[in-house]
Amino acid sequence: MPSGPSGSASSGSARWAPVLLEHQGELARRLGCKLELKTLCARTIQQRDLSWLRPPVEVTTDWKQVVHDPDVDIVISLVGQLATERAIAHAALEAGKHLVTANKQLVAEHGMDLVERSHAAGVNLGIEACVAGGTPVLHAIREGLAGEHFAAVYGILNGTTNYILTEMEQRGCTFAEALAEAQAKGYAEPDPTFDVQGYDARFKIAILAMISFGQPVLVESIPVEGIARIDQVDFAYAHRLGHTIRLIAAARRRAAGRLQVFVRPMMIPRAAPLAAVLGSTNGVLLVGDKGGNTLITGRGAGGEPTGVAVVSDVVEIARSVAGGGGMTTPLGYIDWRPARIAPAGDEVVGAYLRLVVRDRYGILARVCGILARHRINIHSVLQEPEHPPQRMPFVMTLEPTREHRITSAVAQITRLPFLAESPLVMPFADLP
Amino acid sequence: MPSGPSGSASSGSARWAPVLLEHQGELARRLGCKLELKTLCARTIQQRDLSWLRPPVEVTTDWKQVVHDPDVDIVISLVGQLATERAIAHAALEAGKHLVTANKQLVAEHGMDLVERSHAAGVNLGIEACVAGGTPVLHAIREGLAGEHFAAVYGILNGTTNYILTEMEQRGCTFAEALAEAQAKGYAEPDPTFDVQGYDARFKIAILAMISFGQPVLVESIPVEGIARIDQVDFAYAHRLGHTIRLIAAARRRAAGRLQVFVRPMMIPRAAPLAAVLGSTNGVLLVGDKGGNTLITGRGAGGEPTGVAVVSDVVEIARSVAGGGGMTTPLGYIDWRPARIAPAGDEVVGAYLRLVVRDRYGILARVCGILARHRINIHSVLQEPEHPPQRMPFVMTLEPTREHRITSAVAQITRLPFLAESPLVMPFADLP
Repeated sequence: MPSGPSGSASSGSARWAPVLLEHQGELARRLGCKLELKTLCARTIQQRDLSWLRPPVEVTTDWKQVVHDPDVDIVISLVGQLATERAIAHAALEAGKHLVTANKQLVAEHGMDLVERSHAAGVNLGIEACVAGGTPVLHAIREGLAGEHFAAVYGILNGTTNYILTEMEQRGCTFAEALAEAQAKGYAEPDPTFDVQGYDARFKIAILAMISFGQPVLVESIPVEGIARIDQVDFAYAHRLGHTIRLIAAARRRAAGRLQVFVRPMMIPRAAPLAAVLGSTNGVLLVGDKGGNTLITGRGAGGEPTGVAVVSDVVEIARSVAGGGGMTTPLGYIDWRPARIAPAGDEVVGAYLRLVVRDRYGILARVCGILARHRINIHSVLQEPEHPPQRMPFVMTLEPTREHRITSAVAQITRLPFLAESPLVMPFADLP
Repeated sequence: MPSGPSGSASSGSARWAPVLLEHQGELARRLGCKLELKTLCARTIQQRDLSWLRPPVEVTTDWKQVVHDPDVDIVISLVGQLATERAIAHAALEAGKHLVTANKQLVAEHGMDLVERSHAAGVNLGIEACVAGGTPVLHAIREGLAGEHFAAVYGILNGTTNYILTEMEQRGCTFAEALAEAQAKGYAEPDPTFDVQGYDARFKIAILAMISFGQPVLVESIPVEGIARIDQVDFAYAHRLGHTIRLIAAARRRAAGRLQVFVRPMMIPRAAPLAAVLGSTNGVLLVGDKGGNTLITGRGAGGEPTGVAVVSDVVEIARSVAGGGGMTTPLGYIDWRPARIAPAGDEVVGAYLRLVVRDRYGILARVCGILARHRINIHSVLQEPEHPPQRMPFVMTLEPTREHRITSAVAQITRLPFLAESPLVMPFADLP
């Protein structure tokens, strides 16, 4: 068996490397040559458990040593810290190394820069680990469905928030309780902001939009809303309406060549396939205009799923290196076009509006009056009993209308004196 | 934009070609060059609706003209008839053309032959359309999860049978009624044997096993059982047991490097992800030993999903042609090893046993006696009321034991004089 491409790792969390070593036999069968782990680079090697490491792997704390090693074909970078990761990426591509990264922020914010640099260097990019961990979503889009013209991509892309929402739904606990439990089990960070506020999912949908439509999207242009305001009572109402609540990241083609991209909690039908994505699982629903809907679900995070994604990218690159290395298409497109974003409020949506009020006469009249002045039709009014009159939740469902009308009506409702907290608005998702 | 690879079609059902033409703009953006449909070959062109065809596509009835055209890079063959398809495949590979085929029998029975021929010719094979239509299962296995070492692959691979089972379950109709409806809607062929008896799924699981484990499996060595004997009453009992019934195609690693591969109806938990695969949809559950479980569901059949799969293969091949054509790995492995099949009866399974009897005293004693002599424990006995005493169905669930014991006990039970029809045995699937 010929000796094959050498990988090298610049890695803060080298949990992918054991996957490569343990699967080495299977990988050699796939490739017809051996993948060699040449060097492992970590900032603080002494503290690290490297028990799985077997010689002759070199260990260093200097990533430049990895990137400039002429024996290295592929640089795998899982540093986490953006500036360092970017420096490694630039240096690796400049040195003509293929690059595999799991840094979603790097790819979401600087994807086009990486594409141009790898084009110039004639090397490849592997980014499968950036979205939905061990679930082969990006390969499915770039290769398995390369013949498709996508109409929309919907994802449950953050395991932490989906775990929290599922626990709230199934066990009837509060957001705070579910978050504390997720932290105790290691599903949520001590500072959960990045996940809970939707920022993690925003990077991922930016990458999915880029790969699905060949259009890089400015991350800051993607409206994002987290799940911290979802309450148990919202699940009770959602169920009465035949729905559930999920943090949905979406990218859809709209009129005039525009894209609509967002991350927000939505009411989704309980029979929708994405509603069956439970706990820390991730799911992506790809809507094609020929093949219909494809749903891919699997483990979203963790060392081993990330490891599988990283190693899968390495295998793909190694295939091309071993085969003489015809240039492939980094990230699936040659002709990239910047995305034009559809105006946020123009979308026609039905909505769930939950108000928590200090109960008194005339509340419904005031709220209905505001909605009527915004030409919004009410579809239903729901009120669960057994709530204290000082914090009485009730719900209205609004018939489909342009969202900016709802936004403007809700801004007026928010100023009403009898509200115990700000209204919560969630659109109904018209998922396929 | 440079002119790119030319495809050519030898096609009995050219419904894939409109996908290629309609998506040409998007494909050119992906590839940086244009895919040109050079020639369309069909046996009976005059009867065919070719309204979507625009010049300068050549039309011929002679596939040899396509295969020997020096301007053609990729031959797409969807003839259906095995001998012709095989002849086209051989001629195309010999002429150094890349080959895309949707013929599952060709790939299941002669996959290794095709792999060797394409190796020798230095060209690629595209077979995505052979399994689960527009759903990118094979690419997910070969590329997106190339870093994985699979423990098992489970599939609902035949839309016709899944449609029939779903209708029986949801509407309470008989097998015959559901089949007639499927035929009326075009989901089942006038002669449904190939689908209903599981032969279609058998070809597909042979291909999935080959791609997942790098081990070609002799199609005839795969035990197959169809769904024609499933009755409404089985769904009633399945529901009482928290289960449902699906035609499961499976390939699993077993001890001593052996594979277990089969197609059979099974009792699966209603909460299992595959239980949510409804109607004519296909679903594949990939069990990896690192990445956990990945589920891919989507449209299994039909012209357009097949078209997407075919065009996706064409795009992948075109990428390698346009990039200078490094040799890739046809079907994902270099080092293939023949599969050794685990003995069928050695598997430990729990089972559902449904007897239809002419009611009289002593039946249960006789049946229980036979089971006891085979050292099989009974887990439960269920009997739904309101059946005529001449055709009284009752059900036993059997505790896990080696399947050959169950087979041999059932052979004895079959000879009991009071049976109104042969017993139905279905294992409980220990699906993840």
